[in-house]
Amino acid sequence: MCSRVQRYKLTLAYRGTRYHGWQEQVYCPTWKGPIPGDGSGLPTIQSTVTAALKDVLKHDLELCGSSRTDAGVHAKGQVAHFDTPMVQIPPEGLRRAVNARLPDDIVIRSIEPVDPTFDAVSLTDRKRYQYLIWNDADKPVFCSDLAFHRWQKLDFSAMQQAASFLIGEHDFAAFSKPGHGRTSTVRTIHELSIHVRPPKVVIGVTGNGFLWNMVRIIVGTLIDVGVGQIDPQTIPDILSSRDRRRAGKTAPAHGLYLHWIRYRNSADYSPGGVAQFLHEDPS
Amino acid sequence: MCSRVQRYKLTLAYRGTRYHGWQEQVYCPTWKGPIPGDGSGLPTIQSTVTAALKDVLKHDLELCGSSRTDAGVHAKGQVAHFDTPMVQIPPEGLRRAVNARLPDDIVIRSIEPVDPTFDAVSLTDRKRYQYLIWNDADKPVFCSDLAFHRWQKLDFSAMQQAASFLIGEHDFAAFSKPGHGRTSTVRTIHELSIHVRPPKVVIGVTGNGFLWNMVRIIVGTLIDVGVGQIDPQTIPDILSSRDRRRAGKTAPAHGLYLHWIRYRNSADYSPGGVAQFLHEDPS
Repeated sequence: MCSRVQRYKLTLAYRGTRYHGWQEQVYCPTWKGPIPGDGSGLPTIQSTVTAALKDVLKHDLELCGSSRTDAGVHAKGQVAHFDTPMVQIPPEGLRRAVNARLPDDIVIRSIEPVDPTFDAVSLTDRKRYQYLIWNDADKPVFCSDLAFHRWQKLDFSAMQQAASFLIGEHDFAAFSKPGHGRTSTVRTIHELSIHVRPPKVVIGVTGNGFLWNMVRIIVGTLIDVGVGQIDPQTIPDILSSRDRRRAGKTAPAHGLYLHWIRYRNSADYSPGGVAQFLHEDPS
Repeated sequence: MCSRVQRYKLTLAYRGTRYHGWQEQVYCPTWKGPIPGDGSGLPTIQSTVTAALKDVLKHDLELCGSSRTDAGVHAKGQVAHFDTPMVQIPPEGLRRAVNARLPDDIVIRSIEPVDPTFDAVSLTDRKRYQYLIWNDADKPVFCSDLAFHRWQKLDFSAMQQAASFLIGEHDFAAFSKPGHGRTSTVRTIHELSIHVRPPKVVIGVTGNGFLWNMVRIIVGTLIDVGVGQIDPQTIPDILSSRDRRRAGKTAPAHGLYLHWIRYRNSADYSPGGVAQFLHEDPS
C-alpha cells in the first residue's frame, strides 16, 4: 500500500580478515567495473550485512557499497546505501538491531535516512585510505592480520620525497592493476603522508578516487623506496611510463584500511584522523 | 660427551586467542598446583614453543613457564626456562631461528643464558597484569579477542575507591577460584591502578603473586562497582568474609595480559609501562 521508499546511508567498520572482501556475486547496478571472482568459500562483508538487515527489515534489499574492498582489507568508514519501504524505523533502533545480528568483526557506525538521490557509489567526492606498517625486528603478535610487518630500516626521508611526486593530478596507470576496467586512469591525490610512530608507520592517502590496487601499489613502491630498491627521483619517470612493471610491489591487503569517504555537497565524512587511528585502537 | 648443561631464560609474548592457555598435559615438576584439564583440542603455548625449540635444538627439553595463563589470556612478558647441552648457541641466533618456526601469534622477545639456579617458576618476586576494557557503545571490531567490551558508563571514582581497599597484604580467598591448591591465600598487591583513555580502560595490577583467577575476579568486582552493583565501601567486608560468592563476577580471559615478571635479586623485568601499552599496540 505504501509506495514510498526511504533510502538509508550506512557507515560501517570491519576487520576484513575473515571475509572475501566487500563484494557479493550479485551485481550492484550502479557499479561500472568488473565483478571480481570469488570461489574462496569465505563470506563477503556485503552478504553478511545484507543478511543482518534482511533479518531485521523482513524484506529483500540491495546494499550498494562505495568501495569494493579486496579480501583481507579493513574499513573504518565504508559507506553503503539501501532502500526500504519501512519508513517508520528510528535509525538508532535499526542500527542497534542490525549490530546485534552482526559478527564481532563488523559494526554499523551510523544509519541515517537520506534523500533518494544519494548514491554511495557514484557521488563520492574524496576517499581516504590508511596503510599500517609494523616496522620492527619482531613480528606484531597482537595484530598480525592488521599490519604489514617490515623489519628493514626504512629511509623515511626518501619515502617522503617519492610521495611528493605522486601528489596532484596524474595518470596512475603505472600504479594500478591492469584490467581494472576504468576508462580513465587519471586521478588526483590530495594528500599522501607518512606518519612514523615506532614501531608503527601509517601512510595516509586522500584522493578523488583510486584505481584497482592503486593504494597498495603506491605503498609497495614507497616501501621499495624506503629500503633503497627504487630511487625516489625516478617516480616521475615511472608515472609517465604508464607501465605497471616499473612501479614497486603491491603491498599486501591486510595492512590497508578504508578510512573515510566524503560526498559531494557535503562536509560529512567518517570521523577520526591519523591521531585517533594511532591512539585509540587495538585496530 | 659434554655433561655441561646451559640454562636459558626466555621472555615471550603471545596472543592467547587460539590456544588452550600455557599449560601442557606434561607436568612441570617445579609447579605445585593442580594440573588444569584440557580436552579442547586446541594447542597450548607451551607445546607450541617447545616444538619450535626442539626443532632447532634437536633434543627433548622441558619448558617451565612462570605463569600458567588460562585459555584466551595474552602475555607481553611471560618468562620460561629450559636446559640444553648445546652450549655454543649464540642467543640471538637461537631466538631468530625459534621465532621463524613459531606462528604469527607467539614471539620470543629475548633468550639469555642464565645461572642453573635460575627458576622461572619459584623465584618470582613481582608480577604485573593488565586488563583491557573497551568501554564504548560499539563493540571493538578490530580487537574483539583482545579487550572486554562493556558499554555501560563506569563510575571510575567508585572503582578507584574500591581498588584502594585491595592494595596491600590481604587474604584474597574471596577473590580466587576455589580449588586453587595453594596453602595460603594471603598475597600482597603493590599497585592497582585504573587508567582511562576512552574508549580504553586499562586496569594494571602488580603483586607478589596471584591466586587462580584473582586478577579476573578483582577486575570483575571493580566493573561491578563501576556499574553500581557493588558498593565500594563493602570491599573490606568482602575481603574479610573470605567468601568467593561475595566478590564480583569473573571478568573474561580475553581482556587479560600477563605484563611482566620480576625476579629476586634482579631489577630485570620485561619493558613497557601502561603508556607503551596504550600507544604502541594494536595489542
